[in-house]
Amino acid sequence: MATDRIETEVCVVGAGYAGLTAARRLSVARRDVVVLEARDRVGGRVWTRHTSGGVPIDMGGTFFSPKHERALALAAEVGATVFPTNVVGDTVLATGGKVQRYATDKTPRINPLALASFGQAMARLDAMARRVPLDAPWDAPHAASWDATSAARWLSRRNVPTRGARDLMEATLRALFCCDLAEVSLLNVLFLLGAGGGLLPYMSIEGGYQHFQMRGGMQTVAERVAADLGDRVRLTSPVEAILQRDEAVDVVSPSVTVSARRVVVTIPPALAGHVRYDPPLPADKALLLHQLPAGTEVKAVVVYDEPFWRHDGLCGASVALDDEYEVTLDTTPPDSEAGVIALYAAGPKARRLAAMTPEGRRDTAVDTLVRRFGRAAASPVEVDQVNWVEQEWTRGCSMAHFGTGTLTQYGHELRRPVGRVHFAGTETATVSHGAIDGAVRSGERVADEVLADLGVPGPVSVP
Amino acid sequence: MATDRIETEVCVVGAGYAGLTAARRLSVARRDVVVLEARDRVGGRVWTRHTSGGVPIDMGGTFFSPKHERALALAAEVGATVFPTNVVGDTVLATGGKVQRYATDKTPRINPLALASFGQAMARLDAMARRVPLDAPWDAPHAASWDATSAARWLSRRNVPTRGARDLMEATLRALFCCDLAEVSLLNVLFLLGAGGGLLPYMSIEGGYQHFQMRGGMQTVAERVAADLGDRVRLTSPVEAILQRDEAVDVVSPSVTVSARRVVVTIPPALAGHVRYDPPLPADKALLLHQLPAGTEVKAVVVYDEPFWRHDGLCGASVALDDEYEVTLDTTPPDSEAGVIALYAAGPKARRLAAMTPEGRRDTAVDTLVRRFGRAAASPVEVDQVNWVEQEWTRGCSMAHFGTGTLTQYGHELRRPVGRVHFAGTETATVSHGAIDGAVRSGERVADEVLADLGVPGPVSVP
Repeated sequence: MATDRIETEVCVVGAGYAGLTAARRLSVARRDVVVLEARDRVGGRVWTRHTSGGVPIDMGGTFFSPKHERALALAAEVGATVFPTNVVGDTVLATGGKVQRYATDKTPRINPLALASFGQAMARLDAMARRVPLDAPWDAPHAASWDATSAARWLSRRNVPTRGARDLMEATLRALFCCDLAEVSLLNVLFLLGAGGGLLPYMSIEGGYQHFQMRGGMQTVAERVAADLGDRVRLTSPVEAILQRDEAVDVVSPSVTVSARRVVVTIPPALAGHVRYDPPLPADKALLLHQLPAGTEVKAVVVYDEPFWRHDGLCGASVALDDEYEVTLDTTPPDSEAGVIALYAAGPKARRLAAMTPEGRRDTAVDTLVRRFGRAAASPVEVDQVNWVEQEWTRGCSMAHFGTGTLTQYGHELRRPVGRVHFAGTETATVSHGAIDGAVRSGERVADEVLADLGVPGPVSVP
Repeated sequence: MATDRIETEVCVVGAGYAGLTAARRLSVARRDVVVLEARDRVGGRVWTRHTSGGVPIDMGGTFFSPKHERALALAAEVGATVFPTNVVGDTVLATGGKVQRYATDKTPRINPLALASFGQAMARLDAMARRVPLDAPWDAPHAASWDATSAARWLSRRNVPTRGARDLMEATLRALFCCDLAEVSLLNVLFLLGAGGGLLPYMSIEGGYQHFQMRGGMQTVAERVAADLGDRVRLTSPVEAILQRDEAVDVVSPSVTVSARRVVVTIPPALAGHVRYDPPLPADKALLLHQLPAGTEVKAVVVYDEPFWRHDGLCGASVALDDEYEVTLDTTPPDSEAGVIALYAAGPKARRLAAMTPEGRRDTAVDTLVRRFGRAAASPVEVDQVNWVEQEWTRGCSMAHFGTGTLTQYGHELRRPVGRVHFAGTETATVSHGAIDGAVRSGERVADEVLADLGVPGPVSVP
């Protein structure tokens, strides 16, 4: 049972984008850093696997928006390059068993009343979202009322009169939170929209959240940042306890105990709650971490010899609210002959898929693609799939959500340090909350916080 | 680092009422049992301390209703005896700075419109509650809609037109859940009311939830059950990991590892989620345990030379919605000269008290009693207080609550075993859910479940 013992200035828990960014920034500021990561890889909720033919496929976070400036800057720093998601060709919309296609710059031929109703609801949500202070959603003008209302309850006939519009809005929000909308507070929805610049960017490829992908896969950036940190990143070291002593904090994992002056916890909130703290966490902090579950997302990535849909004038994006996998996107890498499509299922639909056998899920994914893109979809080279809730060191995607009452009652604890222990992760982000860019920003914020705390005045300038 | 290793048939995690009941029942059925308890005492959320003069005072669960048959039976089995809570004398009602008293069998002189409106709301909630199947609240006729609605949202002007009635209903429900009502699903409220026989029993001393107290304090029962189990109960053994192997399960604590054929986890849900499971918990079970926080209750127990209020014709019960400590009850033991009053603060009010110094909380408690019971209250012998969220091995009172969406999405996982690991605790109870009686019933249920699983047919008969 002999474990290594390391002394350092700052111990970072978690080698996702938040942890790696914090460690990098602290390193640049010449602080001694050790990163402890539970898995045998870096990247956290970003995870690039490879097909047997060597094609990189992203099983987790995949996209950047052009507005994800801090994440793009980090990628540029380590020489990673992005490419735009394909938008050439029509989008497929399947409703009631009928498959239609429409030009990406046109609106689909669905009930114009539903479209108008959806547009109105979106405008109303966006207007409310603009009134939510991103650093303190609990101070919004109607915070108490918005936080007492679930997103499902808000999505009533009164607020969104047309059935088709309600269905579309429900699917759109469900794709963001990956859970039933009864589980999410309206204030959380408004905060997320505010943090992302409105609802439209989340729904958009060009100019929106799905604009860019990473050459070599999104994990490339994490790997390069980790490579710069060298042996300061310790893999397969799940943190079990954080023990604050008079002069230092001991961070305990089975293989190594790190003694540090400050600790930065960047793992998902529910997992941060599983760590044993001594002294125990303050009451409200503990209660907050007891109520930040993430959603269920099942993702299937289907690889073909070539992106055959493009020859048919299709861009690879598709939506069908009747299917378990509601959305597909083209995630074909630019420097490969293969064609790659990712399918997404969120919330209750993902949980139904999760109850199937892997073969059943696989067949459902391929059948879905055949219905939307034709017979050529029936012969994939490879199908990969993941359920992020089953990942012990993540437990859900793409971010934790706030149930009713949580933000107003406990939100003030999100970023509050506890003694020498600081907290980061995309759930603590204001701008780009829930996105990779939010994780990066939270890493920058917490690094500056720790530097100030260690007596280094003001934020450091990072090249 | 050498730890004890024990082999047994069933390892019970937690020596609260659920765990002790399960261990007792398994023992009676001649199964070999070991109970691991994190604290240096048994009883869990039941905790009797003693004044310097030796007067027992209950800091946690204190009362039984006459309908709490299984808990009463357990008490009788170990020879513990109950006494009725004092109801002789008037109740004090303080509103808007005005203190009035009313006979316990009369209604207080508050706005009759408010009283009528409160009565109507109570009748409506009770009628809805009767439609909730206690073993599957998610199958209630309007489960989806009720679970998408927070209790705060339901408590609108439309459902409860009179302001005074809304305030009273809000305080009543807040006292049950110890949190802001935005945090609780309406379906959870209805389920709790169903599990307790309606709202009135929760509000009542005579014939209701506050009817009986235990001679010597409520922990007496737990201590006697533990004494019968002898050295099979291991204190100061917090369980860190549950490792399911082919033929056995290893239950790991710092001082001892218990290898068992079956495990029964009875600790509060959030803490059950902190244990490391190998293999990891199934997805939905993990998500359920990530979203069952408990509420905040601050309790102060004030001890006097004698129950002076009784000489003034007061019973010691009082209510004032304007105060932080909204409710008081007489918890004077029958075989002592001392007088004891317990003060309760719930949810946001308790959190405001928790932010004060212990002296500030103490002074607030005494001032509250002086306002309601006169100058004699200014000279207590002793004041004891506890905030159950700060208790590392409980983290909140009196039970976990379900936020919107949780019961319908994940409730089916509450009692579902995971391989050789079974789950109990008052949060898994149907009848008397959230009460000590619910904990006892869950212990009985899980013992029968484990016995059946081990090949002992049917429920055993316990004397």
